[in-house]
Amino acid sequence: MSNRTMSAEHRQFFSVWRVNARSQTLSKEPVPAAWQPLGGRALLARILVDDVATTCDPLGPHNKLIFAPGLLVGHTLSSCDRISIGAKSPLTGGAKESNAGGRTGMQIALLGMKALIIEGQPDEPGWWALHLSASGARFDRADELAGLGVYAAAPPLLEKYGEKVAIALIGPGGEMKLAGAGIQNLDKDKVPSRIAARGGLGAVMGSKGLKAIVFDGSGGEKPPLTDADGFKQARKAYTKALMGHPQTAIYKEYGTAAIARMAHAFGALPTRNFSQGQFEGLEAISAETLRQTLLDGSDKGCETSHACMAGCTIQSSNIYVSIDGDTKVSPLEYETIGLMGSNLAIDALDDIARLNYEVNDLGLDTIEIGAALGVAAEAGLMAFGDAKRALELVQEIRQGTPLGRVLGNGAAVTGPVLGVTRVPVVKGQALSAYDPRAIKGTGVTYATSPQGADHTCGLTIRAKVDHLSPEGQVALSRGAQYAMAGYDSLGACIFAGFGFGADPQVVPALLNSRYGWAVDEGFLRQLGKESVQLEREFNRRAGFTAADDRLPEWMTQEPLPPHNAVFDVPEAEMDSIFEE
Amino acid sequence: MSNRTMSAEHRQFFSVWRVNARSQTLSKEPVPAAWQPLGGRALLARILVDDVATTCDPLGPHNKLIFAPGLLVGHTLSSCDRISIGAKSPLTGGAKESNAGGRTGMQIALLGMKALIIEGQPDEPGWWALHLSASGARFDRADELAGLGVYAAAPPLLEKYGEKVAIALIGPGGEMKLAGAGIQNLDKDKVPSRIAARGGLGAVMGSKGLKAIVFDGSGGEKPPLTDADGFKQARKAYTKALMGHPQTAIYKEYGTAAIARMAHAFGALPTRNFSQGQFEGLEAISAETLRQTLLDGSDKGCETSHACMAGCTIQSSNIYVSIDGDTKVSPLEYETIGLMGSNLAIDALDDIARLNYEVNDLGLDTIEIGAALGVAAEAGLMAFGDAKRALELVQEIRQGTPLGRVLGNGAAVTGPVLGVTRVPVVKGQALSAYDPRAIKGTGVTYATSPQGADHTCGLTIRAKVDHLSPEGQVALSRGAQYAMAGYDSLGACIFAGFGFGADPQVVPALLNSRYGWAVDEGFLRQLGKESVQLEREFNRRAGFTAADDRLPEWMTQEPLPPHNAVFDVPEAEMDSIFEE
Repeated sequence: MSNRTMSAEHRQFFSVWRVNARSQTLSKEPVPAAWQPLGGRALLARILVDDVATTCDPLGPHNKLIFAPGLLVGHTLSSCDRISIGAKSPLTGGAKESNAGGRTGMQIALLGMKALIIEGQPDEPGWWALHLSASGARFDRADELAGLGVYAAAPPLLEKYGEKVAIALIGPGGEMKLAGAGIQNLDKDKVPSRIAARGGLGAVMGSKGLKAIVFDGSGGEKPPLTDADGFKQARKAYTKALMGHPQTAIYKEYGTAAIARMAHAFGALPTRNFSQGQFEGLEAISAETLRQTLLDGSDKGCETSHACMAGCTIQSSNIYVSIDGDTKVSPLEYETIGLMGSNLAIDALDDIARLNYEVNDLGLDTIEIGAALGVAAEAGLMAFGDAKRALELVQEIRQGTPLGRVLGNGAAVTGPVLGVTRVPVVKGQALSAYDPRAIKGTGVTYATSPQGADHTCGLTIRAKVDHLSPEGQVALSRGAQYAMAGYDSLGACIFAGFGFGADPQVVPALLNSRYGWAVDEGFLRQLGKESVQLEREFNRRAGFTAADDRLPEWMTQEPLPPHNAVFDVPEAEMDSIFEE
Repeated sequence: MSNRTMSAEHRQFFSVWRVNARSQTLSKEPVPAAWQPLGGRALLARILVDDVATTCDPLGPHNKLIFAPGLLVGHTLSSCDRISIGAKSPLTGGAKESNAGGRTGMQIALLGMKALIIEGQPDEPGWWALHLSASGARFDRADELAGLGVYAAAPPLLEKYGEKVAIALIGPGGEMKLAGAGIQNLDKDKVPSRIAARGGLGAVMGSKGLKAIVFDGSGGEKPPLTDADGFKQARKAYTKALMGHPQTAIYKEYGTAAIARMAHAFGALPTRNFSQGQFEGLEAISAETLRQTLLDGSDKGCETSHACMAGCTIQSSNIYVSIDGDTKVSPLEYETIGLMGSNLAIDALDDIARLNYEVNDLGLDTIEIGAALGVAAEAGLMAFGDAKRALELVQEIRQGTPLGRVLGNGAAVTGPVLGVTRVPVVKGQALSAYDPRAIKGTGVTYATSPQGADHTCGLTIRAKVDHLSPEGQVALSRGAQYAMAGYDSLGACIFAGFGFGADPQVVPALLNSRYGWAVDEGFLRQLGKESVQLEREFNRRAGFTAADDRLPEWMTQEPLPPHNAVFDVPEAEMDSIFEE
């Protein structure tokens, strides 16, 4: 691999911002050589290995909350300004990266942050807003925001700090240090809806006494381009490749909800706590119904297509407003429809949107909470299909009742507490909306990803293979995992991959012109592999073994209708997945 | 080591009873050669390694609930008829052995069981009593006992099956599959108070649909003695050594409660969720106060000294009856006094006894529940010292409320759910009543024992060392761990160790005369070492690493008053503990 250190110009521009939440101090440090070639997820993994005590308590003073923009962030390349956030996960106990769109990535880049590392925790309880700008770091009291959902907390923050800032903030879930809590980020329209959802990062932020982090990049510049002309050419090629891909149009028109019918067709749509792979209420929650509902509701503010960040051409997001106009949520996505719809046997988009809204507002992960509710339904705490009761259970979380705290800590806690053994988790993290018995490559990803179960770590549903056969799934998952980790390290949305795939020269061209590197077509996979290996090294030191790289035992035994498939990819094959 | 297979006579007498809880069938099998030299804890460990899928769900159909009498069980040797019960632990996820006095060991021996292995689980919900006798196994419906505490469930069982049977049974805790649930056993007076408490074995029994297991050894014989005269001599020597030891008299007079003052003196008495090592209310919960209370209450049925099993000469148990006469509990022991007294800042024996009674009745581990209540107090759910509120919280467990289920799952679940990081657990299991910062050898045991934190795996408080110094603690713990595991493999009470220690010829003489072996003085340590190594092998396959052999991080950082000690035994030293 080519030399990927930073040029003098980049070294000048970028620094590592280290903030101590106890002493409330900031130090800006030069970017260490080993961190220079990395960004986003890969950089987080490197920092975790280099800088975080692997066996620390995730909610204790030795964990660190880290923000790292991907390598392409800062130039409004379509879908390439995502921010990666990471820490040792309170949910999995391992390395965690979760990324989000919205404004945060761009403002961080304007501030010249290669990474923001937040250390320590206050001695006293209380809530703070951390303001970061060219003037440095300032801790402002934010106790008046305590207990507020993110929708209510964002406007006063915007009023105080200006309408153009980026804000990463937590809801009551993160304040309660629930392992299902994520970190919400403002989208381009100032709505706190872009959540780094998975793995409990909101709890880590809560453990550091931070209700909000404000990134004010005003007066800042975009990161330097070593070869500005080359970058312009590369950008053009990328946009062309992306726009030319047929999937781009589908996502623009239908959003991720288009996957519901596909998953149902494969018998992989999680239904009734992962006990069935098809849902009789599919039509009511399908992309077609969603699209028609959005079109019909355009006068109320519905939008079928919506960009979460400036410059995005895919615009897979949407804005959903309920019939009564009370609920406005953006985006209403497939994973939420799967976990809070079919998985709970709820077949009305308005109900799903309401659940989505409440869980967003609490700053929680809809996948984790949907899975926890499925387990609760199995335990008899709600009837499958009873949306009103599901909403009551979500309100228990808001009230911080013991039951609410159980649910808010996710499915892995909810199962044992309620005496349920059919719990859909790997490494403590809930499965997303693809039953792994029917999409076995994604099952391999769930099992072996150092992140815990997560479709964004290597979804295989689009591959032209027999998804029910155990054969070839390990290799398929490996490729997908390296690719996804590569995107996550660039700051690219998964859907940017359509463009990267259509023209393999795009990624090297963008990086080489920006950084003065000479990487080739193989670089994306190499970067992804590097990420995964660093995360595995962190996990190994934290105590993970092959025994953690397993789907829940019951999924290897309980047949999934309609195909009556069990998960049967050989364990030995999974154990050598990352040897290539 | 000498050949330790069984003689023909012993092979004839003993068999392995394998019961399937799904098909409700029994098969009796010859004892495999590798199992013949072992008993109790060592045999459990061997069976777990040989016979149980290490990565199985502890509450799923592939876990096995195993009963194995120790090598000396069956001849009413003083304190040597204990039963070891084991499985993969729902609390720790690792190998678990928990042993108890009472009647079970003897009846199992009379039935000629080398081990009882209960496999599978019923397809349908419902409760059963498994009746084991010379006629074989019978499953009787026991739904009418569902929800009953053990004190209410035992009498109808005795009425139905006869007054002389042994019964192992679970309370509502085990029925709810709570990870803090143990298995209660009848004592010699037919009271279900001898609990195999630790590690959630009651939940495993509950997962197999068994409310009770009845052992009817009537018509059975004591196990064969290869050299009856030699055994008689050895028994005499043992009894003499035991009775001559000064500690025996102390335990007879004061029971285990005598340790409270010692722990306080060392600054190791868990107080207010392990935040202090001395308790201002010590006098009220001391052994002297207990003894006086028992003497004063003799007309109500109090007894200062009481045997849990026939033939015991130590009689460290007691019978405690509260002032109002409402509560009768046996025994009131130090661990309960520590965890439910000082750890909750409760300074009245009547209150502690009431909590003890309720938790016994629920079939739960008082250590685990005491620790969980300490965490709940830290979270603000009860004030320290508020016994009435503590009792209400225990009633939540009985009612099966979400909060109750959280507490019943132990401290490791309670902490994250309630947002508390000062959680006193290792491998998910609560620390017993010795703060490891002040008794560091026991801290090494907590950290490194394959069983999770457990003083009965290697208590070091009696060693004449500087307990605050990190030096020499690893070797001290190693010796204690091997010795304790040895006792647990013989079926011997820890206090039998006074006799074994006083005359090292006793153990070889007893075993050699019983089995026709030729083991020497080093055997006990060897047997203990074998147990620990087998358990570690099981754990290794289940995914445990050195990262699991650690005290909670906060105990290495938060100084414990009055000595302001932290736990500072070097990790590298702990990691090589079992290499000798």
